[in-house]
Formats: sequence, C-alpha cells, structure tokens
Amino acid sequence: MSKITFLGGGSFGSALAVLLAEKNNIVSIYDRNENVVNEINIKRTNEKYMKNSIIPDGVTAFNNIEEAIDGADYIVLSIPSHVIRSMCQKLKNKISKDIPIISIAKGIEENSDKRLSIVIEEELDNPVVILSGPSHAEEVIMKLPTTIVSTSKNMKYATDVQDLFMTSYFRVYTNEDLIGVEVGGAVKNVIALAAGVIDGLGYGDNTKAALLTRGMKEIARVGVALGGREETFYGLTVIQRLLF
Amino acid sequence: MSKITFLGGGSFGSALAVLLAEKNNIVSIYDRNENVVNEINIKRTNEKYMKNSIIPDGVTAFNNIEEAIDGADYIVLSIPSHVIRSMCQKLKNKISKDIPIISIAKGIEENSDKRLSIVIEEELDNPVVILSGPSHAEEVIMKLPTTIVSTSKNMKYATDVQDLFMTSYFRVYTNEDLIGVEVGGAVKNVIALAAGVIDGLGYGDNTKAALLTRGMKEIARVGVALGGREETFYGLTVIQRLLF
Repeated sequence: MSKITFLGGGSFGSALAVLLAEKNNIVSIYDRNENVVNEINIKRTNEKYMKNSIIPDGVTAFNNIEEAIDGADYIVLSIPSHVIRSMCQKLKNKISKDIPIISIAKGIEENSDKRLSIVIEEELDNPVVILSGPSHAEEVIMKLPTTIVSTSKNMKYATDVQDLFMTSYFRVYTNEDLIGVEVGGAVKNVIALAAGVIDGLGYGDNTKAALLTRGMKEIARVGVALGGREETFYGLTVIQRLLF
Repeated sequence: MSKITFLGGGSFGSALAVLLAEKNNIVSIYDRNENVVNEINIKRTNEKYMKNSIIPDGVTAFNNIEEAIDGADYIVLSIPSHVIRSMCQKLKNKISKDIPIISIAKGIEENSDKRLSIVIEEELDNPVVILSGPSHAEEVIMKLPTTIVSTSKNMKYATDVQDLFMTSYFRVYTNEDLIGVEVGGAVKNVIALAAGVIDGLGYGDNTKAALLTRGMKEIARVGVALGGREETFYGLTVIQRLLF
C-alpha cells in the first residue's frame, strides 16, 4: 500500500487515481479549483472530468498542495505540459528527494523545446518516471483493456511504477528508451492533426493509411535524430495515440 | 502506351483497369461471367464490383482468355489467391516469357503454404511483380489519394510497374523486400480479424491500439522468421491494410 498524490484533477489523472484507490492505495488529488475538490470529497463525483463515475473513499481531494503531498510515496504530475515547470518550482524544498515524480503530461516545453523529464530534472532532484499512454481516460474508467508505457533514466523506478499501476485490465509495459517515448508522444500530434485534416477534406482510408505510414517514418526520423531508438516509434507511444 | 490484360473483373482489378485506361493504355479484362463481360462492353458499367462508375472506352472485356491476353505487354492476376495456380496453368505456353505477371491477390496458397509469387514462378517462367496495397477499390475509383507498393525479385520490373500505374492520386512505392511484402499482406489478416473481434466485444480504442501495436510486432517476428526485413512490417503493406 502506497500513498500517491496527483497534482491536477483532470480526466486521465482522475482515472488513474481511481485505479490506484481500487488497488487499496491511499490517493490524494490536488486541484486548484475548490469546487472540484468539494465535489470529490462530498459527492464522490467529478462530473466535469469523469462523467457518471463514483470516486472511491480511498481518494481525498485537497485545495492545498502542502496538504496533498504530505506523506506521499509517489507524486503524479497530472497537469498540462505548460505548467509542469511552475508546479515543480512549487514542490521545490517541500518533498524528499527520493520520491519519484511521475509525469503523464505530453508535449515539449514551449520556447525551450525541452522534453518534460528534462524540465522536471532542472527543477527537482527527484527520480522522474514518464507514463505514456492512451488519452482515453473514459476507457480506463470503464476498465476496458488498456496498455501504457513506463520509462525512466533509472529503470528501477520505471519498474516500481509498472507494479504500482498494473491491473488485470491496465497493462503497463516498460521501455528503456526515455527519449523515444517522450519525443514520440509529443511529435505524433503533428500527424494526428493531419489525420483530422484528411477527414475534414473527405478523403478516405487509403489516404489516411498513407499519411500514418509515411508519418510514422517521419516521426521515427525526428526521434532518432533527437536520440531515441527507431523501434520505439513503431510502438505504443506513437501508435496508440496516433490512430484514434 | 501499353496493353494490359486483367484476368478477373473484381473490384480492385476493375478500379486499376479504369486507372490504366485513363492513362491512355489499352486494357482488356477477362471474366468468366458472360454477364459481366457484356455489361462492361455494352453498358460500360460493372455494377456488382464498381457501383455508379462509367468504364472508359479503353477497356474491353472478354469471356475468352486467349482473346483477352492477345498482344498483352503486362498481365494482371486480379483473382483470389486460391485460383492463382490454376490460372497460371491456363496461361502456360500461351504467353511470351518476357511478359511481366502482376499479382494483386493476397494470401498464402492453401495446403502448400507458399507465397503467391512462388506459386506463379512454379507454373510460369515470366517475371513476377507483386502490387500490394489498399483493399478499398472504391476509393481508387473516386481518385482519393492512395499509396501502394510494387515489389519483385528483379526490381527493374517493379519499377516498370511503378511507372505504369503511377498517377497524381495513385502513388506507387517500390520495396525490394518481396518476401516481407507478401508475408505482411497475408499475415496481417489474423490481426485484422482480432480487431473485428474487439469491436464486437465492445472494447475501445485503447484495446484496439494495444492489439495493433503488439500485433505488428508479432507480424514482424513471423515475417523476419520467413526471410522478410523487419522495417517492411511497419510499412504500407501491413499498416495500410490493418487499420481500416
């Protein structure tokens, strides 16, 4: 049994918080919106981000970061990429250096073009684990079979996080290619946007297949140039998010 | 300007026949069904296989193989995989050995487990080219952007076929990995069936993404064991047909 704190009460974070609470962990969610906090604690719902779901008693919400992180064994950054740095700055000197920071955010930092694990490392001395997977939080809530990738510079932490989240319906793979997982998860959005354009233009499956196939090759080229491993770009991080 | 004979008047063959006729080639279609032949020649339609399409004058249909192949520069086998061998036996001693045989069929021969290019080579001494691409003939008819792969033991012929079929909306890539293209195009159906099962069971995108990602890895393993190149299995042959 661990204590896990989610910083951010959005849909994917909330889905994972429920999953961990159902595994008998103690789960805290920090959210800056007091209404969300009260709704979770009093009504046991989070209608904006988790429609028609009951949040188990193992989850407690806080409107105060210090209270939320008190005693945490793991901290999950379930916030958008553009606030990762400022959130890490708020955590500075408030958490023990051995607490793994788990990021489920996607993207590259604006202006600096840095991967999010780099951003976190620049602000905190803690181990960083990237969980990269499906965007469909509602399917996790429905316990539909889902796969996700856990990666870290130090794979010991990636494996710990794998064990933490693994259930019969939520399968966590580990991947040693931190760079590839982060770059793939961010860059694939370019191709995903183009796939939307294809739909909008009224093109068909043949066209989309062509885009995805060539797009995967291009993602892989960018990723390899940035230090990732080619095979990562044909894996879960890219495909899972690209297709749907 | 070339003369191309299609053996089989199904939907993908007919779509390619129209494409070639519109490029000012002389195109013959052999079909064993006399009604299909008459409908093409008289009404300029093929309602069963090409709904709402007009077949251009450059296409002539025949109910007799000898007449259809007379003077052909290329012969396209647009028939199902299980009749490839018997069709090649019918062509034996009736065609010059320098006429490329282009197969657009998918699969592995029943009982023998042989790739279709092997089956053709066992019956005929002609060069063999495999065109492997989308199953959505109706999108080719609609001139929606489409990509396809041309491969052969002797890439000179694959390149000739690339030039023959290439248009502004129909992009033909060449790939030197004949084994990989053939195996990928056949084996991916196992995963495509499983994808249908996932839909039937009411699972979601997360589950299907997991299946496709792991399925591609498994297809690649089978394909590499059979002599293909790993990268082929993350390319058009597999992805284009797997996704939709």
